[in-house]
Amino acid sequence: MRSKFFNMSNAHNTKYAIGIDLGGTSTKFGIVDKDGNILEQDRIPTASEKPVDFFIDELHKKLQPLIDKIGGKEKFIGIGMGAPNGNVYTGNIEYAANLHWHGIVPIAHLLTEKFGLHASLTNDANAAAMGEMMYGAAKGMKHFITITLGTGVGSGIVIDGKMVVGNDGFAGELGHTIVRYNGRLHKQTGSRGCLESYASATGVRQTAIEFMENNPEQPSLLRKYSEMELTSETVYNCALQGDEIAQDVFQFTGEILGEALANFVMFSSPQAIILFGGLTKAGSYIMNPTKEAMEKNLYQVFKNKVQLVFSNLKESDAAILGASALVL
Amino acid sequence: MRSKFFNMSNAHNTKYAIGIDLGGTSTKFGIVDKDGNILEQDRIPTASEKPVDFFIDELHKKLQPLIDKIGGKEKFIGIGMGAPNGNVYTGNIEYAANLHWHGIVPIAHLLTEKFGLHASLTNDANAAAMGEMMYGAAKGMKHFITITLGTGVGSGIVIDGKMVVGNDGFAGELGHTIVRYNGRLHKQTGSRGCLESYASATGVRQTAIEFMENNPEQPSLLRKYSEMELTSETVYNCALQGDEIAQDVFQFTGEILGEALANFVMFSSPQAIILFGGLTKAGSYIMNPTKEAMEKNLYQVFKNKVQLVFSNLKESDAAILGASALVL
Repeated sequence: MRSKFFNMSNAHNTKYAIGIDLGGTSTKFGIVDKDGNILEQDRIPTASEKPVDFFIDELHKKLQPLIDKIGGKEKFIGIGMGAPNGNVYTGNIEYAANLHWHGIVPIAHLLTEKFGLHASLTNDANAAAMGEMMYGAAKGMKHFITITLGTGVGSGIVIDGKMVVGNDGFAGELGHTIVRYNGRLHKQTGSRGCLESYASATGVRQTAIEFMENNPEQPSLLRKYSEMELTSETVYNCALQGDEIAQDVFQFTGEILGEALANFVMFSSPQAIILFGGLTKAGSYIMNPTKEAMEKNLYQVFKNKVQLVFSNLKESDAAILGASALVL
Repeated sequence: MRSKFFNMSNAHNTKYAIGIDLGGTSTKFGIVDKDGNILEQDRIPTASEKPVDFFIDELHKKLQPLIDKIGGKEKFIGIGMGAPNGNVYTGNIEYAANLHWHGIVPIAHLLTEKFGLHASLTNDANAAAMGEMMYGAAKGMKHFITITLGTGVGSGIVIDGKMVVGNDGFAGELGHTIVRYNGRLHKQTGSRGCLESYASATGVRQTAIEFMENNPEQPSLLRKYSEMELTSETVYNCALQGDEIAQDVFQFTGEILGEALANFVMFSSPQAIILFGGLTKAGSYIMNPTKEAMEKNLYQVFKNKVQLVFSNLKESDAAILGASALVL
């Protein structure tokens, strides 16, 4: 009996999980223990223009040494992954707009095959929301929404302490909600005026380009950068230096984002909205106009109630932790 | 012991509830048994331009005789009411845009005082959604949204079989979500471009007036009607007779409504959206453009999945039944 208990206890103490955050540009992964400590972490380019098998191979090359370092796959409970359009019910990535892999990708199955470990999948933004709920700004909250402002705009919705996945596992695609009738073309989907086409890193770059084109006489530090170099970070740096067009870009982006957030609040009446992703590095340049527009568009009963905050987790940690929580 | 059991059983068989649907224009109420049969029903004008005490008195005059007819208040479990901005947590109507009563109205308390019966309150649209779930088009569904297209636009959201009330009891104010940036003024709230300002009976009238003004040369049957006579029903009758402006009014309304519904689907991924209220009398004139616009604006993974249907409950029944379910 003693040895049985000892083994159980030992098993309990030596189990880890792998958390993977598959993004449009790069994929971050980490080894997480049961207390939510990320022991090892690394990243690879997602490179979805190449076949998914190439991605799995690259991931394996980087991740297997980390697994071995911890003591081999026997020490692991499994793999949790967050990915765009990741379906918690099927384990497939299905028709993801920000990835070049087309149609349905059985990613959980491919991971299990390659690593010999159980793999669970969810939406990337849902993974981040789980991380926020367990370890971050939403700790202890039962009603909140997380919005990822990265390559795309993702979202995770928690109501009554439960992740909203809806009838088919795809709930919470708030980046694709329409915020400007007949507005900016979203190239990957063909839709017009969706939130993602404005409030993502890609959207901010597009806005900067449009503002420069529409004001050809106005000098701007932004004109020094090539289209490739224009990121939400370069726009932020120019805004910091007092560049008017750069500041206008955040003002415009925040107005649209805030209006969209108001609509989300009127749907589920959350305690907080938690923003994270590259765009949040712009700090008050993005926060102030967003907050103002959100409050302005809220119906009376919701005004001055909802906390709008940046995530306090390290950018990639929320998603890695949340993904690992799928199996831990 | 036998007599005790007999009494319990007797009590069980003779309990009824009062269901009240307080609307912007009129208030409908009924006496409901435990099987969801409406035994008696009637209505009064809400007349919220007069003090709320006047409303309570008028309701009492009409309702008390029905209570007496059934055998007096001892036969009743209580009163359930659905009302605009009705808060399930507090029992108050708070800052309702479509009522003239200002601020916070402790309506559940006032009902209890007047009738000597326990009273529960919820949002009018949530009451209707409960009616749909128990007796209507959403029977057996765990994920759906009901949209009331009446004087205003209300909504009830069910996720995982539970009504979404959010952190403060006010979730599901989808009529106030912004669908047209800087769009039509919503007189009661001062907001611009909200769904209610277009897809309500009031909105349809406004659209009809605007379309006539913008096309002064175009003949239309609608021109026969005074502003007061213009309702979604008169517009429908004109559309039926082939009137082009009247048909355009529904096309325009449906396009906006459908776009908004697409946004709601991308939030909670429901199995169905159930439409009811006066505007649904326009049948395919409103359904077709709404469905088309909804599908057009949906992100790939949601397309051709969501049932868009009219309620099959009698217009007022869903709300009365749903309200009574608060206490039954």
